[in-house]
Amino acid sequence: MEETLRLGETIKDLLEEDHREQLAGVLEEAHPADVARTLRELPVEQQTTVFRLLSREQAGSVLHEMDDQTLLGLVRALDEVELSGILEGMPADNAAQVVDELPEEQAEKVLDLMKEEKSEEVQELLEYGEKTAGRIMSPEFVAVHEEMSVAQALDHVRKAASAEQAFYLYVVDDHDHLVGVVPFRRLITADPATPIRLIRHEEVVSVTPETDQEEVARIVAKYNLLAVPVVDEGRRLLGTVTVDDVIDVIQQEATEDIQRFGGVAGDETVLDPPNAVFTKRLVWRLINLATAILAASVIGLFESSIQTLATLAVFMPIVASMGGIGTTQTATVVVRGIALGDMTMSVVWRVLRKELLLGLTTGAANGVVMAAIAYLWKGQFLLSVILGVALTLNMVVAAVVGTLVPLALKAFRLDPAIASSVIITTFTDVFGFFSFLGLATLLINFLL
Amino acid sequence: MEETLRLGETIKDLLEEDHREQLAGVLEEAHPADVARTLRELPVEQQTTVFRLLSREQAGSVLHEMDDQTLLGLVRALDEVELSGILEGMPADNAAQVVDELPEEQAEKVLDLMKEEKSEEVQELLEYGEKTAGRIMSPEFVAVHEEMSVAQALDHVRKAASAEQAFYLYVVDDHDHLVGVVPFRRLITADPATPIRLIRHEEVVSVTPETDQEEVARIVAKYNLLAVPVVDEGRRLLGTVTVDDVIDVIQQEATEDIQRFGGVAGDETVLDPPNAVFTKRLVWRLINLATAILAASVIGLFESSIQTLATLAVFMPIVASMGGIGTTQTATVVVRGIALGDMTMSVVWRVLRKELLLGLTTGAANGVVMAAIAYLWKGQFLLSVILGVALTLNMVVAAVVGTLVPLALKAFRLDPAIASSVIITTFTDVFGFFSFLGLATLLINFLL
Repeated sequence: MEETLRLGETIKDLLEEDHREQLAGVLEEAHPADVARTLRELPVEQQTTVFRLLSREQAGSVLHEMDDQTLLGLVRALDEVELSGILEGMPADNAAQVVDELPEEQAEKVLDLMKEEKSEEVQELLEYGEKTAGRIMSPEFVAVHEEMSVAQALDHVRKAASAEQAFYLYVVDDHDHLVGVVPFRRLITADPATPIRLIRHEEVVSVTPETDQEEVARIVAKYNLLAVPVVDEGRRLLGTVTVDDVIDVIQQEATEDIQRFGGVAGDETVLDPPNAVFTKRLVWRLINLATAILAASVIGLFESSIQTLATLAVFMPIVASMGGIGTTQTATVVVRGIALGDMTMSVVWRVLRKELLLGLTTGAANGVVMAAIAYLWKGQFLLSVILGVALTLNMVVAAVVGTLVPLALKAFRLDPAIASSVIITTFTDVFGFFSFLGLATLLINFLL
Repeated sequence: MEETLRLGETIKDLLEEDHREQLAGVLEEAHPADVARTLRELPVEQQTTVFRLLSREQAGSVLHEMDDQTLLGLVRALDEVELSGILEGMPADNAAQVVDELPEEQAEKVLDLMKEEKSEEVQELLEYGEKTAGRIMSPEFVAVHEEMSVAQALDHVRKAASAEQAFYLYVVDDHDHLVGVVPFRRLITADPATPIRLIRHEEVVSVTPETDQEEVARIVAKYNLLAVPVVDEGRRLLGTVTVDDVIDVIQQEATEDIQRFGGVAGDETVLDPPNAVFTKRLVWRLINLATAILAASVIGLFESSIQTLATLAVFMPIVASMGGIGTTQTATVVVRGIALGDMTMSVVWRVLRKELLLGLTTGAANGVVMAAIAYLWKGQFLLSVILGVALTLNMVVAAVVGTLVPLALKAFRLDPAIASSVIITTFTDVFGFFSFLGLATLLINFLL
C-alpha cells in the first residue's frame, strides 16, 4: 500500500501549495483505487476540491473504487448535473452501484438528467433485487453466432467497443440462446478457418439475474472462472459478472460475516465517523443488556443461596465464560461452513455428532481441571464436583446451541452470522447459572 | 451447489451397484471441483476406490481442489509411485501445494520418484517461505521481447504450451527484465505490424517471491488484475500469481480471521473429524479457563462484600457481559480494518478517538438504562448508580482494549485476529468486576 501513501503525501503537498494544475496531472496519472484511498483520508472539504480536479472518466473510475461512506459525503457536495455527467461515462453496472447509494430524491434527479439510453440501462439493473447477480452484472459482453469462423469472430472482437472489459467470447445460436464459450486465448491459438462451433466449450456454467451474489461468488471461485454469464429463463444472454466484482463480493461478505458475528453492522468500516455507527452499535449493546439482564434474573432466583454461601458468586462467571467459548467456537466454524457451502443439510448430523463429542470430551477435561483447582483453592469437595459437572453440561449445551442456532437462522432465511456471540451465549449463560446455582441450592445443606 | 449434490448421488448409486466403468466415465466428465467435494462426503475407504478410477490428469486436478483433511486421508492410502505419477502431471505450483501437505518422509520419497525437472521446479517453490507469493506462483508464463511485432508475439503465444494458463503477455528487454505487459485481448485488437513496445503498459504492478500472500491478494483486488507477475530483485520474471489462486487466498485468510477471532484454528473446517480438532479446541478452552479463573479471583477479593450483600452477585455478570460486547465490537472492526488494509498507522488516533467517543456515549446510554432498571428491580438507589458508573467506565476500557490489543499484536508481527474474544474480554472482565465490586465495597456502609 506504499503507492497510496506516497500519492497521499504528494496530493497533500500540492493542495497546500495550491498547485492545482500540477495536482490535476498527478491525479489523472494515478490509479483510481489509489486516488479513492487517498481521498477518504482527506477532510471532507478537501475531498470535493480534489475530486473536482479529476477528468470525467477518471472521476467515474474513482467513484467506483470508493467506499460507501466517502462516496455519500462526496455526492452530497456535488450537484446533480455534475454527477449525471460523471455517471454517463461509467459502465452501467458501476453507475448503478453509485446511484443505489444516493438518497432517493437525488437518485431520481440524476437519472432524469442522464442520457436516456444509459439511464434506462442503469434503471433496469436497479430493478433486480439487492445482492443478486442482476445487480452486479455488466450488461456489456462480446457474443458471436456459432456458425462464424475464428477469423470472423476475431474481426467481431476487434470492432466490439466492449471487448476491453471482456474475458470470454460467448457463442449464441439463431435464437440468441447461449450455446457455448471460448476463452480469448483459445481464439488466438486456433486456426482462423475453424468454425467457432468446433472450439467452443458447450458446458457453460451460468447464473440467472436472481441468483444471490454469494452463490455467484461460490461458482466463480469453485470453477476458477474469470466471468460467469447471466442468462434469463430462455437462456438468452443478459450480461456477465466478472471476477473483479466477485472478489469485491467475497471481501464484502467476509466482512459482513465477521462483523455481524461480532455484533457490528456488516458494512461498518474502521474509518466511519462515530455518528454513522452510533445507533447500530447501541442497538446491539442494548440487546446485549437485555440478554445480560435475563441471565442476571436467573442469578436473582438463587440470591438467598449466594447470601448463604458467597463462594458460589466467585465460581459463577467461570461456568458462563466456558459456555461462552464453547458456543463461540462451535458457531464460528458452523457459520463459516455455511458461508463456504460446506455445511449442507446432508452433513448436519455428522457435524452435530462431532460437536457433541467435542463438547463432552473437552467439557469433561475442563470440568476435571476446574474441579481440581476449585478444590485446591476453596477446599470444598462437593462444591468443586458441582462446578465440574455444571461446566461439562454447559459445554454440551454449547455444542448444540452453536450448531443449531446458525442452522435455524439459515432455515428462516436469515443470515446465520447474526447468531453473534451476543445471542448464542445467552443460552449458555442462562443454562450455566441455572445448572450451577440450581445444583448448589439443591445440595446447599451439604455445602455448609 | 446442486451440481455437486447430483454428482454425489450418481457416484453413490454407481458405487453400490459396482458399475466401475460407468463410474469412471462420469468422474472423467465431471468438474474436478465437484469430484473433490463429492469425495469428502464419502467414507474414507470409498474415497480411495473412487479416486483410483480417475485418469492421472483428472486425479491431479481433483487433488488441487481438495481440502487439506480429505487430501491427507487420501494420500495416506496411496503409494508413492501412484502419487508421484499424478504430481508429475500437475502444474508445479499445484503440485507444490500437495507435497507441502504430505508428511516429510512421504514428501521426500515422492519428490525422488518424480521426473527430475518437475521435481526440481516443485522443490524450488517449496523453498520460499509459507504464505508468500513464491509459494503460490506458477512458474509458467508467456513473455516476449519488446522489439517483437504483434504478429510475432501472436505466433509465440500460439506455440507456447503454457498459454492456456496465461492471462497476460509479459514484455521483457535484452536482459530479461520485465518492462511491460499486454492483455491478450489487446493483442487481438492491435494491428499485426505494431511493435509490442508501443502497445505495452509500462507501469506493471509486480510483487517479489517474498511478498506475503495477503498483500498479493490486496494488490490483485485493488487493481482488478487477473494475474500479478513475481519478479526478483533484478526485476527478472520468475512467475505469476493468478486471480483464481488469489480468490483461494482471500477465502482462506477470511476463514482464518473469523475462526481465530472465535478461538478456533484458522484452518478448521466444519467437516474435520473430531480427533483432528480436539487438541486445538481444548487449548483455547484451557486458555479461557485460565482467564476466567483470573476474573473469578478478582471476585474472590470481594467475597465478604458479596456475603454481606448478595444482590451484588446478581448484577456482577451484567458489567462483565457489557464489557464483552464492547471489546468484541471494537476489536472486530479493528481486526477487519487491519486485514483490509484500512487501519494504517496514520489513522490510529482517529480510530481511537472514534472508539472512545462511542464507548463513552453508548456506555453512558447503557449505564443510565441499566441504573434505571436496577432501581426499579431492587429499589436501591446508590447501588444502581454504582452499577451505571461501572458499566460506563467498562465500556471506555473496552474501547481502548479493543483498539490497541489488535494493533499491538500486529506491531509484534502476530496475527491481530488472535486477539479473540477469549483474550480481550479478560481485560474488561477483570476491570468490570474490580470497578463494580470495588466501588460497592468502598460504599458498602451506605448500601445496607
